[in-house]
Amino acid sequence: MRDVAIIGVKTTRFGEMWGRSFRDIIVEAGVGALEDSGVSGDDIGSMFVGNMSGGQFVEQEHIGALIADYSGLSEGFHVPSTRVEAACASGGLALRQGISAVASGQDDIVVAAGVEKMTDVSSGSASTALAAAADREWEGMMGATFPALYAMIARMHMHRYGTTSEQLAQVAVKNHHNGAMNPIAQYRTPITVETVLNSIMVADPLHIFDCSPITDGAAAVILAPADIAHEYTDTPIYIRGSGQASDTLALHDRRDITTLDATVFAARRAFDMAGMTVDDIDLVEVHDCFTIAEICAIEDIGFAAKGEGGKLTEEGETAIGGKIPVNTSGGLKSCGHPVGATGIKQVVEITHQLRGEAGKRQVDGAEVGMAHNVGGSGATAVVHILSRER
Amino acid sequence: MRDVAIIGVKTTRFGEMWGRSFRDIIVEAGVGALEDSGVSGDDIGSMFVGNMSGGQFVEQEHIGALIADYSGLSEGFHVPSTRVEAACASGGLALRQGISAVASGQDDIVVAAGVEKMTDVSSGSASTALAAAADREWEGMMGATFPALYAMIARMHMHRYGTTSEQLAQVAVKNHHNGAMNPIAQYRTPITVETVLNSIMVADPLHIFDCSPITDGAAAVILAPADIAHEYTDTPIYIRGSGQASDTLALHDRRDITTLDATVFAARRAFDMAGMTVDDIDLVEVHDCFTIAEICAIEDIGFAAKGEGGKLTEEGETAIGGKIPVNTSGGLKSCGHPVGATGIKQVVEITHQLRGEAGKRQVDGAEVGMAHNVGGSGATAVVHILSRER
Repeated sequence: MRDVAIIGVKTTRFGEMWGRSFRDIIVEAGVGALEDSGVSGDDIGSMFVGNMSGGQFVEQEHIGALIADYSGLSEGFHVPSTRVEAACASGGLALRQGISAVASGQDDIVVAAGVEKMTDVSSGSASTALAAAADREWEGMMGATFPALYAMIARMHMHRYGTTSEQLAQVAVKNHHNGAMNPIAQYRTPITVETVLNSIMVADPLHIFDCSPITDGAAAVILAPADIAHEYTDTPIYIRGSGQASDTLALHDRRDITTLDATVFAARRAFDMAGMTVDDIDLVEVHDCFTIAEICAIEDIGFAAKGEGGKLTEEGETAIGGKIPVNTSGGLKSCGHPVGATGIKQVVEITHQLRGEAGKRQVDGAEVGMAHNVGGSGATAVVHILSRER
Repeated sequence: MRDVAIIGVKTTRFGEMWGRSFRDIIVEAGVGALEDSGVSGDDIGSMFVGNMSGGQFVEQEHIGALIADYSGLSEGFHVPSTRVEAACASGGLALRQGISAVASGQDDIVVAAGVEKMTDVSSGSASTALAAAADREWEGMMGATFPALYAMIARMHMHRYGTTSEQLAQVAVKNHHNGAMNPIAQYRTPITVETVLNSIMVADPLHIFDCSPITDGAAAVILAPADIAHEYTDTPIYIRGSGQASDTLALHDRRDITTLDATVFAARRAFDMAGMTVDDIDLVEVHDCFTIAEICAIEDIGFAAKGEGGKLTEEGETAIGGKIPVNTSGGLKSCGHPVGATGIKQVVEITHQLRGEAGKRQVDGAEVGMAHNVGGSGATAVVHILSRER
């Protein structure tokens, strides 16, 4: 297998974009990433696009071909373009397929992108569409929304480990602090613990400020064989590890709902591939669809012992400047969560950090970063490790 | 890149399965393919599943994880499982991703599967859901259904090349003849040219017998590195070529609607990879979602000169025993078309033929076969070439 590098990145503004279409935002991300890398259309071997539910949100499937078409890569080039889906982990899996295409020698230059248009949707509510990421027959049909599923995880985590609502709120406060420094973030307003605790309850114990929002957005990265990456950029960022794992779709089938086994296995596989441990990681973007999800993630990856994630957060060790900065982008919570785009946006943030171009959010001396992307309530997890040095 | 072989295959019965769920049929296909190959769960490195629209048909996304779960591959194994979508070409692309995973060395044993449950669906009509494979904004919104789009292709083909309704009907007659010999086919009733010409008109000049049906079904293949394939089976079938290409999503943006450029380029890429030409192919499964689609396909791949596909069919050269047997399975027309499963089913049929186990449908001395899978009206095409000899 060949080593793979990222040579270009772009994320659109995340937020409610009532005046812009699905097509507009993905083309902006794709063209932006191409410009960032300096490659042209005829260099591109293939494209992989993460998208959870174009069918439900905008009544459009065949997303890969749509994007190749509207990027000007169909006529003449006929670039192969494939949509990849694993609910909110669709973006991370699109990256993984892109890496596979370059690593195998099948293609040299590959676009890995993600997109979701969740406002101004044609059918039903976003919550109903999102419930399709969980087990429709055994969870959705019983009325379990995503906040409800994660609320059960939170309640059990509190019961078993003494995690508090204040600790959950600290996750949101940190991520809004980071998001306020991120020009593409949906919410750029700092909040306090009181903001969270006084906000309306969505699913006890999760307040609305414990939940990530409904978001439109797109992101793209350009991949190349590591051996030729310097032809395109002075600052290639190398893919060092990639791990993916599955778990049961329904929460009630798990051995322990406070641990996402898919995260445990995906992280382990990525660490094995990279020949690294948690001690090598300088910063991480984790999948904080709810505040409790960030606490589970930092435990399940291994940055904190099980049950200690809330404490680590409270002590400020997951803030920029702490032991392990978590979600410098603002995370899903503050930056926004266009489900198919999130996994790519995480990798764009890590790339900006490792290139040293993250502005006020910059983690000093960041050499190695990680991105952790989860589908649904943890039936899919995918983890990537990136570094400045090959 | 490593050479890749197919070591196990299974297709469910295709048809209207009102008493069986999405989960039932994909598990039947997956388990059947595993039994056919003799591999066990802990051998499996990853899974790729083609599915066009679980979201619209059964309100379920996150299809990869669902299938890993219900196949018993989540708990304990945590097998990575990824859904791939390109409308009706989803199955072919799932195979292509599976091949990439094995070829790259990422995994050894890989499951590539496809599934669609199109009857007993929860929302809207199948036709509405299928329209999401075309350009929703510029075709679907204007009322263009898939039969309408292919009717325009047919009308132009007739105008330009003199193709007749009788020739279109001959495609259906041949495919029903083949399907009648296929135990898994949805329609096992031979028909005549009169059956087609006297059937109701769906979109002039396409009668209902020119159209493939709405179908439930699933199919799976097991892939392994060619070097170890003989450990599992005495009759491995080798992947010799794989090509994929895109075209504009909307028909009106094409330079010529009677030629599917995606087919032309995908076939060319597969031939280049295999180091073969049309003369090497002993039989082919092409994407006959409508009778005109089979005629375009055999022309665009190169079995007939442009405009001569109808004549080749009329002369019986695409029948079993003819110069190039096309759709020995019965094709989408008679075997049925569960959109996400079709691309895998085609490869299962070619595998059965190359193994010499196709029964009454057997093409004598078949050494090399091809599968051609199209998404929508041709915005995606994927072509695979398989052989008995490595």
